[in-house]
Order: sequence, then structure tokens, then C-alpha cells
Amino acid sequence: MSHEKKRSAEALTDWATRCLESQGATCGVAQAMAKHLVAGDLMGFRTHGLLRLRYNLQALAKGATKASGQPRVAQERAAIALWDADLLSGLYVLPQAIEKAIAMARDYGTGTVIVRRTQHVAALAVYLEQATAAGMLIQMMCSTPAQQVVAPFGAKSASFSPNPFAIGVPTTSDPVLLDMSLSMTAAGKVRTAIAEGKQLPYPALITAEGDYSCDPNTFVAEPASVLASLGGEALGYKGTGLNLFSEFWTLALSDYGRADAQAADGDANTVWLQVVDPSALMAEGAFERQAQQLVAAVRQATPITPAQPIRLPGEGALSKRRQQLQTGIEYSAATWRQLEWCAEFCDEPLP
Amino acid sequence: MSHEKKRSAEALTDWATRCLESQGATCGVAQAMAKHLVAGDLMGFRTHGLLRLRYNLQALAKGATKASGQPRVAQERAAIALWDADLLSGLYVLPQAIEKAIAMARDYGTGTVIVRRTQHVAALAVYLEQATAAGMLIQMMCSTPAQQVVAPFGAKSASFSPNPFAIGVPTTSDPVLLDMSLSMTAAGKVRTAIAEGKQLPYPALITAEGDYSCDPNTFVAEPASVLASLGGEALGYKGTGLNLFSEFWTLALSDYGRADAQAADGDANTVWLQVVDPSALMAEGAFERQAQQLVAAVRQATPITPAQPIRLPGEGALSKRRQQLQTGIEYSAATWRQLEWCAEFCDEPLP
Repeated sequence: MSHEKKRSAEALTDWATRCLESQGATCGVAQAMAKHLVAGDLMGFRTHGLLRLRYNLQALAKGATKASGQPRVAQERAAIALWDADLLSGLYVLPQAIEKAIAMARDYGTGTVIVRRTQHVAALAVYLEQATAAGMLIQMMCSTPAQQVVAPFGAKSASFSPNPFAIGVPTTSDPVLLDMSLSMTAAGKVRTAIAEGKQLPYPALITAEGDYSCDPNTFVAEPASVLASLGGEALGYKGTGLNLFSEFWTLALSDYGRADAQAADGDANTVWLQVVDPSALMAEGAFERQAQQLVAAVRQATPITPAQPIRLPGEGALSKRRQQLQTGIEYSAATWRQLEWCAEFCDEPLP
Repeated sequence: MSHEKKRSAEALTDWATRCLESQGATCGVAQAMAKHLVAGDLMGFRTHGLLRLRYNLQALAKGATKASGQPRVAQERAAIALWDADLLSGLYVLPQAIEKAIAMARDYGTGTVIVRRTQHVAALAVYLEQATAAGMLIQMMCSTPAQQVVAPFGAKSASFSPNPFAIGVPTTSDPVLLDMSLSMTAAGKVRTAIAEGKQLPYPALITAEGDYSCDPNTFVAEPASVLASLGGEALGYKGTGLNLFSEFWTLALSDYGRADAQAADGDANTVWLQVVDPSALMAEGAFERQAQQLVAAVRQATPITPAQPIRLPGEGALSKRRQQLQTGIEYSAATWRQLEWCAEFCDEPLP
């Protein structure tokens, strides 16, 4: 695209930090928020990158996202803790929660932190390497108690929020980084399809009439369609089971369900994260070798299309990051206009 | 069916226990194996019930399944343990592992046991209520290092074993009991379709030519088709991610991967199980109320077909069990012939 803008990750992170500070965020909060938004862009998750800076600045400005403070430990027992983020940004709170889980795993073999009432979490993928770099496995799930947009199997109305699921696993080479939703598609992809005037590539929506549909415009119709659980018309009971897994382990285990989520918590999320320390169970390096064998078994599978080798989760994102750390991060004209809005709003000229 | 045979669960359990003892199983091993096979029948999982008694008797007779002894603790750290089952039956070892995990969760909030080299595990669903009855959540995953029958996304050859995934969750009413595979279908369902001369209801297989197929006969052709990961042709990368989750958390965390599984371990499984004690995080009864709200949100969704209300995982199985505990367990003529074979093999007349 001729309209693309390229800037270094470092310059963008510094600029976004200043913008966030201008809206009252303390230095620590602003740095963590900027770092993890830019991390999303570096890995190619453009809907979870600086495109969302505007949203975060406005949330700080109106007090929906808290600008300073620390999460509160609500309850704790040895290897598990429940934190209340008190509407601090997930971009700031989750790295602290992972640090705590890693410390627990060193002592107990596993470490689990459930964080409720945390604002913008962005892409779970950007948090995973904190654990894998420490030689540990991590699993994360996120749900949003005030949102219901995903239908259980057999229904044409929604019970679940969009529920991302992520894992990070160290190997002897790159870590495996999986970040996916438990529905057939994400609301962001539906909105992109509307903007581009395209149909969805498979029937991921259920209309108010109960039909599985590829038409993104049904999502903004009245009455609106809802997202189908992973598995769709044939196997949606599996996706429904996985959505229940996510919401029992986040909402129910945080003692903060849909009935508790006040209007003010509209966007606030609940995150389950668990770290496992393989050194509790085997000699140093053994886990990474076993994990590498599983990775090799996937890579060595025979591709359906010979020119398309089998890919591992996270492979594309890590490759994209390597490239953009060299060349700078490319922004589309549409995203750049959002950054220009932020620059003006905060009176912080773009780099 | 006019050929169906009905017997009480108790009489069948006693009979199966005697059969297993006749093949050398100690009383404790035989009782646990019989109980959990009959539990599968009671819940309607017929391919994981007494239909598999013959297999278990033969495995005991030839020493593939160990008839006595205890699992060995390979490694342990506070809230996590790695056990080596030394080829004891999963039907005997897993209840012990869950008991250990429950005890760990009382002390640490969570308890995790990974069991490697365990023989026949049957349906994960039959183990879940041990945790839910103690007021705890349980998650289980199982894989089989010497088997590869599920393809990663984009491939027409297999990397993964059939990997079931299960959760059990206490509510204020019945527990939620989910037990599903992470592939598009199970090998048993493909074999049933072959026997019945039917096509699969959706393309769950990938042929050696790389085509998604409903034809079960491709599964026994040469070269054979393989099972597709959950998500299929459009979204199989999600099922591939879930299969990787299962195999990293079972095979890699047990330090016993496909390269380690000797020929003698052909059917031996590795199980990850984790129990969470919600009383570590909230007042008594609070978790069950939150879980019940999530269940209610699913039940209250608007059904696509008004006559088909939305079902919760485990609902059908628990209803089937209630009915069969009253009326006795019904067996098809084909399964009954297998039980007659066992009766003759062990010289233990059927009840």
C-alpha cells in the first residue's frame, strides 16, 4: 500500500507512553500499556495493537480505566490467587500476574492467578513469552462478564462472551504461541468483512431466524445475528463445551459473574492464567526436547498442498516481529489516521 | 430392540470383577476396573463400557496390563506430581490420582497429577464426579504416545493420537460433565459407520489424496485416511492448537514422548488431570451459585428449533444413568455376545 507509514517499535512505544501519561497514567502503567499494544502490532495482530490506543486514551480520560494503583489480592492459597484489578488495564496487570504465577510455580510446580475486573487485555499472545522465557508453560483464558455475543450449540441467541484461549510452550527453538477464539470467528473479523463489503469465508454467524450465515451484515441488523461456537452446525457442542470451560474457570472461579458485572464494567475482563514449571518433574532441558519432538511431528506431516508446509501456532507472528524489528512497523492509512487523532488529542506529535 | 439384555449394574459389576480376578487381577484392581467400565455403560458411553471387558481380560492374560501393584511417583513438587503407572489399568490408577490431586488442592488451591504409561482409560467422563462431589473443578486430557491418527491442519497424514478432553464442574444442581475428542470424530464412530454401511454426517476424514471426506471406508483403505482436527477444512488450525495443548501437557510434561513409547506400550496412555478447589478463593457455596448462573444462561438461550431446548454437557449421560439404575443396563445383542465370550473365557456364568 502506498499509504503505509513505517516507524520503529521503540519510537512508537515512547510516543504512546507519553500519550498515555498525558491522560494521567503513571509512568509504570503507561509504559506497560504502550509496550503490549506495540507488541501486538509487531506480531501482526493489528486489531489488538496501537489501533486501540485511542480507545485506551479515552478510557483513561473518562476514568473507565484506572490510571494508577495496584491490583488487590482478593484471596490466596499457596499455588492460586484471585486478584481484583479494580479497572486497571490488563496491559499493566497481566504481566504482574504472570510474574506472580511464575514465582508460585517455582515453589509449588504450578502457579495460577485469576484476575477479575481488568480493562483492555488486547492479544493474549503478547504475554506468553514472559513464561516461556522462564522455561515454563502457560495457559490463558479470558472472558468478559458484561458481554454476550456467542451462542451455545442449538441456540440462536448468545450466552457467552468472545472467549480467547492461549498457550505458550518453550521448545529447543522458537516457543509455540497459540492465541485463538473459541467461536467460529471474532467480532472484529465480522466488522472488517462489513467494511470491505465481503462475505465471511464460512458460516460463522447464526441469524435471528436460526440460520447459519456467511453474511456479516446480519451482525448489525435488527435483530442481530450472533457468533457460532467453534464446531459450527455439525460440532458446535464441542465449542460450547470449550466456552463453558473458559467461563467456569474465569467468571465462576473469580466469584464475579454476569449478575455482578455492573454497567460501569462493560468492557472489563476476567483472565485465568496458569504457569507450569517442568523442572518440577524432570531434568533441565528434557521438557524442551520433548516439546520439540511434538513440533517436529507436526512439521513432518505430509502437506495437502506440497507448496504449503504445515505451520505451528505463533510461527507467523514471530517471523513478522523479526521483520518489523528490522524494518519498522508498517501502518495502514486508516490506522495512521487513528494515531494522528491520538497525537492531536494528547498534543504529542507522532514520531 | 428385541435382542436387548437387561441386567442390574450391581450384578454386572460383581460378575466383571470375578472375571478380572480370574485373569490375575487383585481384588482392588478388579473392582476398580469393573466399576468404571460399568459406569461407562450407565452413562451411555457404550464403546467405553463392558464392551471393552474382553480387551481388558486379554490384556491381563498376556501381561500387557499389569494385574497388581501401585503406580510409582516419578517426581513431585508440592502441587504437581508425575506418576508412572507401570502399565496398570487407568480404570484403577486414575481414581487414585484424582484422590491425590484433591488432597493437593486442599493444601495448595490446585492439584495436578500427570500419569504416564497407564493402560485402558475408557471414558474420561466416568472419573469426573469424584472431584465434583468434593466441591472441586476437574480438567482431564489424555493422549496415547504410540498412536498417530489425527492430522494437523493442512496435512493429510497424522501427527496426533485421538485426544479426549474433559471437565467436571459442580453447580447447585447436577454437575456439568464434558467429555469430547479434539478431532472431528472418533475412530470408534468411523468403525461404527463402516459396520452400518453409512456415510459420516460431515467430512471428518482426510484421504491420502488430501480430500476432506465423509466416506468411512477410506479409513480402512490402503493408504488410509486420517481424522481431521476439530474445525475441519475452514478452522482446523484451532483443533490443531488444542491437540498441541493436549500433547504438550500430557506427553511432553510426562517426559515420555513418541520416541520413548516402546512397542509394548502400544495402547498405554498419558493423562493430565488437574483439580481446583474454589474454597481457596471464595466462601462456601459461592462457586456453585456462579456456575449455576452460567448453566442458566445456556439453558435460557433461544433454541433454533423450539422443541429442542439447549442441552448442557453431561445432561444426557446423567439422565441415562438414573434410568438404567432403575431399570437395569440394556445391552445390544452384539455386545451381549462379547460378554458371553468373556463368561466362557473366565468360566464365570453371566448374571
